[in-house]
Amino acid sequence: MLSTLRASSRALPRASIRRAVEIQQQRSIHNTLRRPAFAATNANVAVDSVSSHEPFYRNEPSGPSVKSAIPGPKSQAAIGELDEVFDTRSLNMICDYSKSIGNYISDHDHNLLLDVYAQIASIPLGYNNPALASIASSPEMLNALINRPALGNFPPANWTETLKAGILAVAPSGLNQVFTGMSGSDANECAYKAAFMFHRRRDRGEGASFTEEELSSSMNNEKPGSPDLAIMSFRKGFHGRLFGSLSTTRSKPIHKIDIPSFKWPQARFPHLKYPLEEFAAENAKEESECLADVERLITSWHCPVSAVVVEPIQSEGGDFHASPKFFQGLRDITLKHNVLLIVDEVQTGVGATGKFWAHDHWNLTTPPDIVTFSKKAQTAGYYFGNPLLRPTMAYRQFNTWMGDPARVLIFNTIIQEIGRLNLVQHTANTGAYLYDGLDRLSKQYPTEIQNLRGKGQGTFIAWDSPQRDAFLKKMKTVGVNIGGCGDSAVRLRPMLVFQQHHADILLEAIEKVFKA
Amino acid sequence: MLSTLRASSRALPRASIRRAVEIQQQRSIHNTLRRPAFAATNANVAVDSVSSHEPFYRNEPSGPSVKSAIPGPKSQAAIGELDEVFDTRSLNMICDYSKSIGNYISDHDHNLLLDVYAQIASIPLGYNNPALASIASSPEMLNALINRPALGNFPPANWTETLKAGILAVAPSGLNQVFTGMSGSDANECAYKAAFMFHRRRDRGEGASFTEEELSSSMNNEKPGSPDLAIMSFRKGFHGRLFGSLSTTRSKPIHKIDIPSFKWPQARFPHLKYPLEEFAAENAKEESECLADVERLITSWHCPVSAVVVEPIQSEGGDFHASPKFFQGLRDITLKHNVLLIVDEVQTGVGATGKFWAHDHWNLTTPPDIVTFSKKAQTAGYYFGNPLLRPTMAYRQFNTWMGDPARVLIFNTIIQEIGRLNLVQHTANTGAYLYDGLDRLSKQYPTEIQNLRGKGQGTFIAWDSPQRDAFLKKMKTVGVNIGGCGDSAVRLRPMLVFQQHHADILLEAIEKVFKA
Repeated sequence: MLSTLRASSRALPRASIRRAVEIQQQRSIHNTLRRPAFAATNANVAVDSVSSHEPFYRNEPSGPSVKSAIPGPKSQAAIGELDEVFDTRSLNMICDYSKSIGNYISDHDHNLLLDVYAQIASIPLGYNNPALASIASSPEMLNALINRPALGNFPPANWTETLKAGILAVAPSGLNQVFTGMSGSDANECAYKAAFMFHRRRDRGEGASFTEEELSSSMNNEKPGSPDLAIMSFRKGFHGRLFGSLSTTRSKPIHKIDIPSFKWPQARFPHLKYPLEEFAAENAKEESECLADVERLITSWHCPVSAVVVEPIQSEGGDFHASPKFFQGLRDITLKHNVLLIVDEVQTGVGATGKFWAHDHWNLTTPPDIVTFSKKAQTAGYYFGNPLLRPTMAYRQFNTWMGDPARVLIFNTIIQEIGRLNLVQHTANTGAYLYDGLDRLSKQYPTEIQNLRGKGQGTFIAWDSPQRDAFLKKMKTVGVNIGGCGDSAVRLRPMLVFQQHHADILLEAIEKVFKA
Repeated sequence: MLSTLRASSRALPRASIRRAVEIQQQRSIHNTLRRPAFAATNANVAVDSVSSHEPFYRNEPSGPSVKSAIPGPKSQAAIGELDEVFDTRSLNMICDYSKSIGNYISDHDHNLLLDVYAQIASIPLGYNNPALASIASSPEMLNALINRPALGNFPPANWTETLKAGILAVAPSGLNQVFTGMSGSDANECAYKAAFMFHRRRDRGEGASFTEEELSSSMNNEKPGSPDLAIMSFRKGFHGRLFGSLSTTRSKPIHKIDIPSFKWPQARFPHLKYPLEEFAAENAKEESECLADVERLITSWHCPVSAVVVEPIQSEGGDFHASPKFFQGLRDITLKHNVLLIVDEVQTGVGATGKFWAHDHWNLTTPPDIVTFSKKAQTAGYYFGNPLLRPTMAYRQFNTWMGDPARVLIFNTIIQEIGRLNLVQHTANTGAYLYDGLDRLSKQYPTEIQNLRGKGQGTFIAWDSPQRDAFLKKMKTVGVNIGGCGDSAVRLRPMLVFQQHHADILLEAIEKVFKA
């Protein structure tokens, strides 16, 4: 903005310059009011290259700052007010996002915490990211916000371009089509629907019509139109909370109790022993038993299994990993039995594991049939490749909005920034550094850090903690916002802009809590 | 902007003024690039009062303009490209939203159509609305877009204020709390979950804990933890397309076939005969039989019914209406049998029926237990009043995003504009005018317009058409984008800024098609 002013003021007399500067200043004040300060001052622009020493965010603080109890007095008052109209029992912190920056989240009392939970693993680039601020202020965004289309009926003319500019440019290998959606649950359920329609299409034979009986019985929620078919998931898996996705979620009773569900099967998921190198034989046996369980269920369940859904790393359920060999075996079994493989990358996708998609670690011989995404994408949907996964007729897979182009623009910018800053490789590197630090700590504090896992998986690192909830709480007092999962796991979910100096702060804070 | 310039240029010499104007022009060009033209020119600001003669949008065209076949050559090329990556079989028109304005939608070939379908009834204020453009360019929006919170865990400090400033200010009478969501399907399914948890809470007795058997069986999708409970819906009802909502959807087989569903009951919904005044006795009998069917199913279904979900006007299924008396009867039956009443206002809500909520027409003695919303709200969720509808523990009703604050800001602005321009009353008036016109046409063309319905329901008007799909297609050739529903209905879903002169254009176009 100043450079524009300089260029245009060359031919102006001194008084005009002064006046133009005044106008400019008025405009700057206006802009400051309209944007976070960094957009006006340019002080916060991320650097252009990956370096473990130079901060991505130039005006990030040098460390956390805890001034009050959390929640402090202002937060407590705000929570009380909010609770009258909105359930606050799951509230963790009440936040001031205008004061949050990069890897640091500010609460309402202006405590500034290093955030390695990142809105349940859903913030990729940090708070008040300038590239996101730029797209958020663009004419494309304005258009997407104020003219929300019913995408399946009235897509904008540039929808192909929008999809190709980002969301499809990072499509998993072998998958070149997308169905856009609203949330992880929505993405998974639409994927399940695609799998069921594909299953029946195959049963019926290509080109066959629906029978009258199918059409009429479907309206009564009865067979054959509404068939008994299943999606298989794994114990401790989490795939969402709506009725279909919740039937495949097996994380905790609190997610499921009192809600009717489909009688779908769950297979055992490997529970590996750590350190992996010490338990190689046992773990191989465990994985092979789990695969046998998968095959047993597919061949013996009371109804056909149309698809298996699996997370590359079971997240909500407790951060459970399996080896590439296990997933290759799973792909082989699904191919053998004509069952689709749906990989749920809602939490693992978009770079955090040191690959753009976590299943890139597996080196599968054939790609998964469907890959779902959400969270760090800031939008949701599923990718597929087989054109037969488009249902036989229009309107079978459809809904009013089919996603939100505004959020797709955000994802596209995230993708560009990940590319520009090489954030996937950066996260692999930072993750390795962080893992080594935690490995050292686990040797010093073997009771506090058990079953450390996530080596070679970027910053997707977790461990079991004997007093997990107390640990998470204490971490706030030393300036870190950190999350848990499963019964006893601490899960790290820093952003992709998390750097070595943040890892040092985190490691120091953890040790401080252990020593206290 | 120009007025700002005028004010600040008073003390400047002529040359400075010229230069300032040049700078201003550069800025205007910049702004024109960044915003639709109206934002820079101010030519498009909506008027401040409701008048049937003065247009809300000053720069709307005087009528539609059809220059090519629809789809025209540019659209056809774009559809071909899009189809490679995104299913286009449900595509209606490929649109240029930057060229759309107010009630007029532009396609990619710059055909400009009067839009009385409005993105499947989801656009309330018209395309490129200046008030929405203003909030979309605000610092609050920037913050909401780039710092997307996990609302249940980390709400922003101003979340209470945001909710109270709009979304809660229009909460249906008696309902003062909200659970925010992503889409109509999501809103309904979360409402169903709330109903099931409430049901089991009542069964268990207040304060009772879950049993071990409930906890463990829920993880296996088995009773008693995963109970056999039902949501009752009505024949031809539409409540969404995810697994739970789809089990209550009974509109068309194409929505349901091949998808597993819950064995939930559907009651008969009244099929009234028109004109209503001629069939008063028959219609009263029909409604009372339908209510008897509701009570029969509640008392005889193989499992308990936790809630009844109903649309005030069945929309997707064919625009079927019932009288306030029917809904009062339904409320009485649900109260008598301890069944919750969920009113699905996804399509009927936010003003189109001449009341802000369609169920305001009913004058219920006690409010519904839950009211869901989406579409014209541009965001989604459910309202409730009874504090016991908050589940017994945190995290039972939860998901990562729990809505999108960016879209909530849009809804809040829609609410403000509806209030400022008195658009609910305006829609009641315009609807009455439009209905009268259609009534006249139905007498001239009794074969073409059958069962005209929606009198006194704002612009929520429909009729049965003998060759509906052909009619909808022909309407495009005379410059109107119009939608259907059910097997044979034409459904009108104009925006809230639809005025008498638009009604005249619409009536003329309809007659033109009838005469052709």
